[in-house]
Amino acid sequence: MSYDDQNIFAKILRGEIPNVTVYEDDDTLCFMDIMPRADGHCLVIPKTPCRNMLDASPDQLAACMRTVNKVSNAAMTAFGADGITLQQFNEAAGGQEVFHLHFHILPRHEGVATRPPGQMGDMDAIKAHAQAISDAL
Amino acid sequence: MSYDDQNIFAKILRGEIPNVTVYEDDDTLCFMDIMPRADGHCLVIPKTPCRNMLDASPDQLAACMRTVNKVSNAAMTAFGADGITLQQFNEAAGGQEVFHLHFHILPRHEGVATRPPGQMGDMDAIKAHAQAISDAL
Repeated sequence: MSYDDQNIFAKILRGEIPNVTVYEDDDTLCFMDIMPRADGHCLVIPKTPCRNMLDASPDQLAACMRTVNKVSNAAMTAFGADGITLQQFNEAAGGQEVFHLHFHILPRHEGVATRPPGQMGDMDAIKAHAQAISDAL
Repeated sequence: MSYDDQNIFAKILRGEIPNVTVYEDDDTLCFMDIMPRADGHCLVIPKTPCRNMLDASPDQLAACMRTVNKVSNAAMTAFGADGITLQQFNEAAGGQEVFHLHFHILPRHEGVATRPPGQMGDMDAIKAHAQAISDAL
């Protein structure tokens, strides 16, 4: 399986399509999922190309996990969350829809189920959630 | 939240209870989930204590992801899998049941759903799946 640089996250990294950024460093970008399955649902991606975890380098994975840890702790604070569900999908059979490595961070609250996939979120709410996480970083 | 060294993965690491090992290096252990949600479902844990991803160090996370990558690629080969679903749960609200950091590797096949949680697997099948992954490493 090869990397297709026309995937939407590659376009986000090139600034060709907009995103709601939560956090950014030299190696990674964290931005909001526009179909949030929980309030504060965001994605962490490496800035360099790889299709998914299977072809990612140790450095790409380590950089992503540093950001996942940082943003997850900020989200716990920002939303008074009780936990975090981390998901990462590889190939279509594994649940992957965009073929640039990404980790899903879902802030969770006791007794609150995740929402079904594929539902567009309210952009004002998404922007407010991004700001709340950024403020807690 | 603190680390309780009486959790079952700490006991596995101390050799107090058995496990079906897939892979081991200086920093991590990969062993089979005994309630597999897919054939080949296995877990990667650091050998050093941490409760989950939220309190894990960058080194612990990097070491786990190196092993996740290695074992996942071996599982793709071993089972002719079409994808991998990676899950990692933090705190009870996030889905966590054992409070030592662990990553779930679920080999996936096109059109095959994961099985419901909480069902004990057949130990002979689990051992055969572990061997198949080990052989592909």
